[in-house]
Amino acid sequence: MEFNIEKVSNSLKDKIQHKINNKTKPLGSLGKLEQIALKISLIQGTLTPELNNPTIIVFASDHGICSEKVSAYPQDVTHQMVLNFLNCGAAINVFCRQNNIAIKIVDAGVNFDFPENKNLINAKIGYGTKNFLAEPAMTIDELNQAIKKGMDIVRSVHAEDSNVIGFGEMGIGNTSSASVIMSQLLGLNIEECIGRGAGLDDEGLKNKAEILKRAVNKYSKTNGDAFEVLTKFGGFEIAMITGAILQAAELKMLILIDGFIVTSALLAAYFLDKNVIDYCIFSHVSDEKGHRIMLDKLGVEPVLDLRMRLGEGTGAAVVYPVILSAVAFFNRMASFDSAGVSTKI
Amino acid sequence: MEFNIEKVSNSLKDKIQHKINNKTKPLGSLGKLEQIALKISLIQGTLTPELNNPTIIVFASDHGICSEKVSAYPQDVTHQMVLNFLNCGAAINVFCRQNNIAIKIVDAGVNFDFPENKNLINAKIGYGTKNFLAEPAMTIDELNQAIKKGMDIVRSVHAEDSNVIGFGEMGIGNTSSASVIMSQLLGLNIEECIGRGAGLDDEGLKNKAEILKRAVNKYSKTNGDAFEVLTKFGGFEIAMITGAILQAAELKMLILIDGFIVTSALLAAYFLDKNVIDYCIFSHVSDEKGHRIMLDKLGVEPVLDLRMRLGEGTGAAVVYPVILSAVAFFNRMASFDSAGVSTKI
Repeated sequence: MEFNIEKVSNSLKDKIQHKINNKTKPLGSLGKLEQIALKISLIQGTLTPELNNPTIIVFASDHGICSEKVSAYPQDVTHQMVLNFLNCGAAINVFCRQNNIAIKIVDAGVNFDFPENKNLINAKIGYGTKNFLAEPAMTIDELNQAIKKGMDIVRSVHAEDSNVIGFGEMGIGNTSSASVIMSQLLGLNIEECIGRGAGLDDEGLKNKAEILKRAVNKYSKTNGDAFEVLTKFGGFEIAMITGAILQAAELKMLILIDGFIVTSALLAAYFLDKNVIDYCIFSHVSDEKGHRIMLDKLGVEPVLDLRMRLGEGTGAAVVYPVILSAVAFFNRMASFDSAGVSTKI
Repeated sequence: MEFNIEKVSNSLKDKIQHKINNKTKPLGSLGKLEQIALKISLIQGTLTPELNNPTIIVFASDHGICSEKVSAYPQDVTHQMVLNFLNCGAAINVFCRQNNIAIKIVDAGVNFDFPENKNLINAKIGYGTKNFLAEPAMTIDELNQAIKKGMDIVRSVHAEDSNVIGFGEMGIGNTSSASVIMSQLLGLNIEECIGRGAGLDDEGLKNKAEILKRAVNKYSKTNGDAFEVLTKFGGFEIAMITGAILQAAELKMLILIDGFIVTSALLAAYFLDKNVIDYCIFSHVSDEKGHRIMLDKLGVEPVLDLRMRLGEGTGAAVVYPVILSAVAFFNRMASFDSAGVSTKI
């Protein structure tokens, strides 16, 4: 599989920074908003950036590892929550509606046959992954399918004139998958990468750690090969998001990275093509333990820290107005010159 | 002066928390949004809170202490920025427009005669405060006027059916005033309370520290008397915001506290009536050094940390959609029951 992601050019950087510095405000006083305005302007290669038709795609899938009791919720919750998405009752629906973000729901591999629904994109790879404690989560062919479908869906969103995209996920057990991906790609001890997910108690957390340690020890080392890591430990939704992120970057879209799971998918994408990160804004830091570590390792800073850990893309949906604030000040504020305001003594 | 601020009742707390806990999401997974939803519901005493006609009032005034070169910008910038507000070119204008927040501009005591303008509220107490290195910043009569005018303006906003309000400020030199207020009321060494304001260099910061130390030493101890502190060291805009905050709390409005200056005004209000804090959400933590310390001393947590330090109420304007997200999930998300989603194992 070939990706053709261009590194974002810095050729306009001085001009963009000059425009920011001449707004009627103390130098640097809009903090992260200034960095966001710079980033978006560089991605779009313009001094007048625009965000069009923001879209969040929620990928849902089930996980074989669930049978090892690594989650606080039963597997049925995955398909129940997909139905909740379709009925507009979940957090991601509420936040997308509030912030005028289009939402798309994808069945990437849920263990359930959904009735026909025009709002559900059927990209089912299977009825959940295999239990990676026993065998690889998916075949190489399934991985390729998942990545390709993720890419196809992003291309269709881009074709509808969207240039800003976020990804969400639903999949009981998927923090286990994400923890192992993180551990394998960053070369970290699995314990550092494990958290309570949707709400494990101490005993549950201990069991999760033991299961994942056994799983990791079962296989030979992956040595940073993202395809191999995803095949052995991935979820269909995670692999699909990896493909989606790579495609969005190739299309020079602004990508709003959500929390722990989506960042694990971005990590896989990053190991396939480092340029992908140029197109990403890290919406928030999740309360799931490993997320902060992943962000630190990537050398990036989250915009928000609301102690959220819900998934579904909710971090990306909630941060969106803050991103709009960055674009708004950059496009609309007066300059010292235009407003006749004196500059620093 | 008498204030009649009711402590917010906790009588609905269990019911509100029960509603939050039964939303289709892991327990506690919306982090700060859950705390905000609880706070607003308690203030409004309802399980279906609503935010109506959000309004930000920007109070502008000049400061006699400016003649001691405590700011990186010349005093003229205060009136120039007021004109910029009236022309909708400043950051606060842009963010209010983006987030559908009404904005009101108040001349609390700018050293300039503005031409008649229907969008400028004339509440001028004088042409700036006195230089508090030489004499008290204002008289007791001026303080009373300022507090009363702040209260009047909030009553008029409330009468227009607004139940959520934020305050902003503009006043070259006002971080000096705020630093001394903070230091006096919290009993902190003045050095701990001083920062670079709009952008002092090292030499300027050293001068500011020396000036403020001399100013503080000139007067007898204030012993936590907020009226006395405001008279000696206050700005007209800060005193007006103190009155405005007290009135908003008395009217049970939700109050969005902005950054360093506005928090110093809230601190004065808090020393007059501790109940005022029940009505406040702390929008963000400013990059101005003393702000984090003030928030810690008050035992409160900011919603955002965007490293902003612009003032004008911009923190309150940028956080507003996040506050709306809290109300939206609380009012609109499905419950486990209503969506047929299984709960924790």
